[in-house]
Amino acid sequence: MKPAILHTALIQHPCEADPAANRATTADAIRKAASRGAQLVLLQELHATPYFCQVEDTANFDLAEPVPGPTTDWLAELAAELKLVIVGSLFERRDAGLYHNTTVVLDHGRLAGRYRKMHIPDDPGYHEKFYFTPGDLGFAPVDTSVGRLGVLVCWDQWFPEAARLMSLAGAQLLLYPTAIGWDPADDADEKARQLEAWVTVQRGHAVANALPLLACNRCGFEARPGDDAAGIAFWGNSFACGPQGEVLARADDAPRTTVLSCDIDMARSEAVRRIWPFLRDRRIDAYEDLLLRYRDGTADEK
Amino acid sequence: MKPAILHTALIQHPCEADPAANRATTADAIRKAASRGAQLVLLQELHATPYFCQVEDTANFDLAEPVPGPTTDWLAELAAELKLVIVGSLFERRDAGLYHNTTVVLDHGRLAGRYRKMHIPDDPGYHEKFYFTPGDLGFAPVDTSVGRLGVLVCWDQWFPEAARLMSLAGAQLLLYPTAIGWDPADDADEKARQLEAWVTVQRGHAVANALPLLACNRCGFEARPGDDAAGIAFWGNSFACGPQGEVLARADDAPRTTVLSCDIDMARSEAVRRIWPFLRDRRIDAYEDLLLRYRDGTADEK
Repeated sequence: MKPAILHTALIQHPCEADPAANRATTADAIRKAASRGAQLVLLQELHATPYFCQVEDTANFDLAEPVPGPTTDWLAELAAELKLVIVGSLFERRDAGLYHNTTVVLDHGRLAGRYRKMHIPDDPGYHEKFYFTPGDLGFAPVDTSVGRLGVLVCWDQWFPEAARLMSLAGAQLLLYPTAIGWDPADDADEKARQLEAWVTVQRGHAVANALPLLACNRCGFEARPGDDAAGIAFWGNSFACGPQGEVLARADDAPRTTVLSCDIDMARSEAVRRIWPFLRDRRIDAYEDLLLRYRDGTADEK
Repeated sequence: MKPAILHTALIQHPCEADPAANRATTADAIRKAASRGAQLVLLQELHATPYFCQVEDTANFDLAEPVPGPTTDWLAELAAELKLVIVGSLFERRDAGLYHNTTVVLDHGRLAGRYRKMHIPDDPGYHEKFYFTPGDLGFAPVDTSVGRLGVLVCWDQWFPEAARLMSLAGAQLLLYPTAIGWDPADDADEKARQLEAWVTVQRGHAVANALPLLACNRCGFEARPGDDAAGIAFWGNSFACGPQGEVLARADDAPRTTVLSCDIDMARSEAVRRIWPFLRDRRIDAYEDLLLRYRDGTADEK
């Protein structure tokens, strides 16, 4: 029996250099969320470490671990003790030279499933293509005691395809562990546009699929190793929205630990889809070109 | 030579029963837009008539006309005289029993192209499946003197697939003539959620494709024929946004004619795509299931 109202919590925090300190922060926050009645806790992307992708350094592969492994064991123990579902994020070592950015789902004591980040960014300060092999598990939601979870990761949040594929596979909730922030060199207007673009595109996925959505981002400034003048000011602003994209809860960008609690009405999607039945009207006979990189041939005339 | 700054105007107005009156309103507004320097004018969906799809009535097929035909001739003449591009919308008669909801693009005096609405809604008060055969021209942008235009229609605006396909075909601007409004029976909270969902999902398409976007909706209350107590309060709120989804101009819902002018920086998409290169990272090897209606097999377990 799935709950009609799902009590969720998003845990947003700055990361220290020491993974043990981050794990302690996370565990304390999960306990706090549980004490408030959370049944599902979403953690931020790569919550045990600083965002190491600011530079390409082979030593950072030491941060990776197998799945199942120490982090999933630790989260499973917490999830069992506190009787809830935890969606965590880690750097997965699959073999030498084969690593993934992986979301893991712990349902009480059980590793219910994993998702390997499919869309991998590579921008100045986000050298993820160096570290993360693109996922090969596709867009498969994970069944849990609180519902079928469409777990994705960060850069996936810009791609409507990812949300749609989760939706077509029956996901009841979209979840995005995230690590995104501002370049301090950008001006205030550009920073505002970027943050609102990030919120808006995800709210758009919620609308287009009539699904609730949780996005959990880190916060705090992390200097770039070797260049303290550069770095990323992670913008926090973790949020939850409903199936019409309506924001239900939103954190700020302050560099402190926030436990953002939000109740999600899991019956609301059904009501919204009855009046806005987008899945009924998709033109699957005319979508074939979505499988192309680009429709070449006439762009030169532009 | 395409302009770097494109002067656009959206024309939002209530519709009267008499098509000649609506055409006069439209022509006056286009002249006003031209006098302000507009190079591209977007009209609302089915701007010459009331939104006749509130009921299923075979007499309404009399409102349809061929393309090219009287409306495209009239708009072409205006576009030639005022030296601009007009994106109009009409009820197209292709043959007996074969009608479309069609966007037409008049580039100065020339019919540059058309788009037949691909996604057809059918909800209480919006009986479009009765009137409109689903489009069979696919998602093909129209080349004009002001750029390559991704013209779509109304219900298409809820489908990320439509915007993406236009983007993959090199569209430089997305345009949505629209007719959407509130059911007076809904409460204020639901009305607010619907309006914001409509704005948000389209801003999301702008973000996901790093393209500017124009949406032009009608305004004013139209009673349902045969039931004056029912009807649609078209919510106006026509808007323009940039390639980060940033709102550049937005009308209100007042039942009067509004000429909403907005300058679009057509070079901005290039700058945004250099830092957020989503087209580079699409997982076209893993999108095949987008061509499915649904991924069946496990939904019953939910």
